[in-house]
Amino acid sequence: MSDEFYLSLAINKAWDYQLLTYPNPAVGAVILDENGKILSICAHQKAGEAHAELNATKEALESKDSSLKSIFAAAKNPNELYNLIIQNHRNLLKNSTYYVTLEPCAHQGKTPPCASLILAMGAKRVVIGSRDYGEHAKGGAEFLTQNGVEVKLDVCKTRCDELLEPFLRWQSGNFTFFKIALTQNGVATGGVISNLASRTHTHRLRALAELMVVGGATVCTDRPTLDARLISGRAPDILIYSSKTEFDLQIPLFNIPNRKIEISNSIEPAFKKRFVMIEGGENFLRNLDSRVDWILIYRSNEFKSANNINLDMKVKILHRSIFGDGELLWCKRLDLGINA
Amino acid sequence: MSDEFYLSLAINKAWDYQLLTYPNPAVGAVILDENGKILSICAHQKAGEAHAELNATKEALESKDSSLKSIFAAAKNPNELYNLIIQNHRNLLKNSTYYVTLEPCAHQGKTPPCASLILAMGAKRVVIGSRDYGEHAKGGAEFLTQNGVEVKLDVCKTRCDELLEPFLRWQSGNFTFFKIALTQNGVATGGVISNLASRTHTHRLRALAELMVVGGATVCTDRPTLDARLISGRAPDILIYSSKTEFDLQIPLFNIPNRKIEISNSIEPAFKKRFVMIEGGENFLRNLDSRVDWILIYRSNEFKSANNINLDMKVKILHRSIFGDGELLWCKRLDLGINA
Repeated sequence: MSDEFYLSLAINKAWDYQLLTYPNPAVGAVILDENGKILSICAHQKAGEAHAELNATKEALESKDSSLKSIFAAAKNPNELYNLIIQNHRNLLKNSTYYVTLEPCAHQGKTPPCASLILAMGAKRVVIGSRDYGEHAKGGAEFLTQNGVEVKLDVCKTRCDELLEPFLRWQSGNFTFFKIALTQNGVATGGVISNLASRTHTHRLRALAELMVVGGATVCTDRPTLDARLISGRAPDILIYSSKTEFDLQIPLFNIPNRKIEISNSIEPAFKKRFVMIEGGENFLRNLDSRVDWILIYRSNEFKSANNINLDMKVKILHRSIFGDGELLWCKRLDLGINA
Repeated sequence: MSDEFYLSLAINKAWDYQLLTYPNPAVGAVILDENGKILSICAHQKAGEAHAELNATKEALESKDSSLKSIFAAAKNPNELYNLIIQNHRNLLKNSTYYVTLEPCAHQGKTPPCASLILAMGAKRVVIGSRDYGEHAKGGAEFLTQNGVEVKLDVCKTRCDELLEPFLRWQSGNFTFFKIALTQNGVATGGVISNLASRTHTHRLRALAELMVVGGATVCTDRPTLDARLISGRAPDILIYSSKTEFDLQIPLFNIPNRKIEISNSIEPAFKKRFVMIEGGENFLRNLDSRVDWILIYRSNEFKSANNINLDMKVKILHRSIFGDGELLWCKRLDLGINA
């Protein structure tokens, strides 16, 4: 099978944690042993937890020797895991191949550099999607090459760069996505369209977003809570985008402790935040025009006898995740974005 | 990686040729070598051509020894390929693992039995999705077990059974699918929604369908040709479902040589055919009610400012194929079908 095939496995895995790694990039890694057998397909899952390479290395070693599981389980943090791996790997990954969607980091962050880890494992070859241009982390490919590891760059480059878009926009100041639930025939209204799995995913995103924007009409009509109760997560701060200045304070969203709420007839304050999530319907999406980077469409498995959201817009579908009987489409507006 | 992981690769490959194998089932196969490396991911592509197992065996052997390519290229048909493989495999697939979405056939059809091929290769293990209950082909798993090959059955059974649905319905008399092109927001009207890749796929299906059904209103409004010119294929016979009995014979569809056209205010004649394709819009789909097995939705990458198709219906999304900037959703009506 081709390098593209194996890197695609890493890309798809990384998408499972897209945005959930905030403020870190979504990264996936695949390891093949010296005979070309797949040992692990892993991703970075959450900021502060292990990088994709570390996760994949752990799983690959455990698949070679399951007795390592109890040893690695003792690690209380990624740093300890890193050290336990260095002490216990017994060259089990000698001559392995690493596939990584992003160039392995070369810097000491919360964990030691992934490039050093890969070298310590005795990897023969590293296939990389996107290059890391970050001032701190860059240099992993060069480090590996200088130490005799064969490095191939820019494989599935477009897809790996797309995976990095939110991260690059967080770094440059703001990433904003619009979340909407639609039926198969484009209906956004009339009761809950999303299923429990997709609502749980929404709550995960809410718990991470710096700010959540919602329209005044939605607040009055739906009387929402807009918290992250399904994952017992932090409720996001709210910007109510509305020309109205007074709302019924009995609406649940106003009664969440430690939540900041701003009411504004301008959406500009939102774009000063790094990670912004917008939930709304047709009018909101149309009015926001070109200010949205990505649109996340939760699509149910139903056709519903009702009117669709009615607007002109072209998207690129970057990825599709399955959520129970529905799906989540990760879409990019085609007329903007960092690569447009 | 799990058996489910490898069988999923075979399932996804088989979907690439779903319906195009008519009247044969869509089948996929994956082969791992003795060390667990993936050697091939193949499918049955077309009736009369090689079965999935034969295609996968050829590709696996070629990946072990590329000089076999020129030898196998000399085969003029699947039978010759089978024999060339038997003569030249040099035990390169000794102790391999086969993953097959459908139990390998045990009968001499247009090619010798796949079960015998797998045994001849020296496979150690065969992982199977659906069982073959067909009077002629069944018995492959038993044959392999009796000859010392480890066989695992019913892996990813639901997904493999779904893959077989059209085949089982062809066998029992009729499989009917409805094809519709929709925008992201459920609009079916207003010019060409599908792209070249999806239109080519439609023409492939037309060339295979025993009968194509289209509504009288569509005939008058769109003045279509309804042939398979994009693949230089046979234009299907047509049933115009209409209370009208007279049409403008200048409409291109009436001027295709060797095409039978029936005009009827009943759709019943269609369901006497084995493989029926319906192309139409909202009203047609609503009126057909529960007579459709599958709905194929070509979804474009656009939102369009227009009304949606407006009906109630619940589907199960069985698979998604990418076609250029759009996608094809393979959907099953949830309130009927062989498994419902």
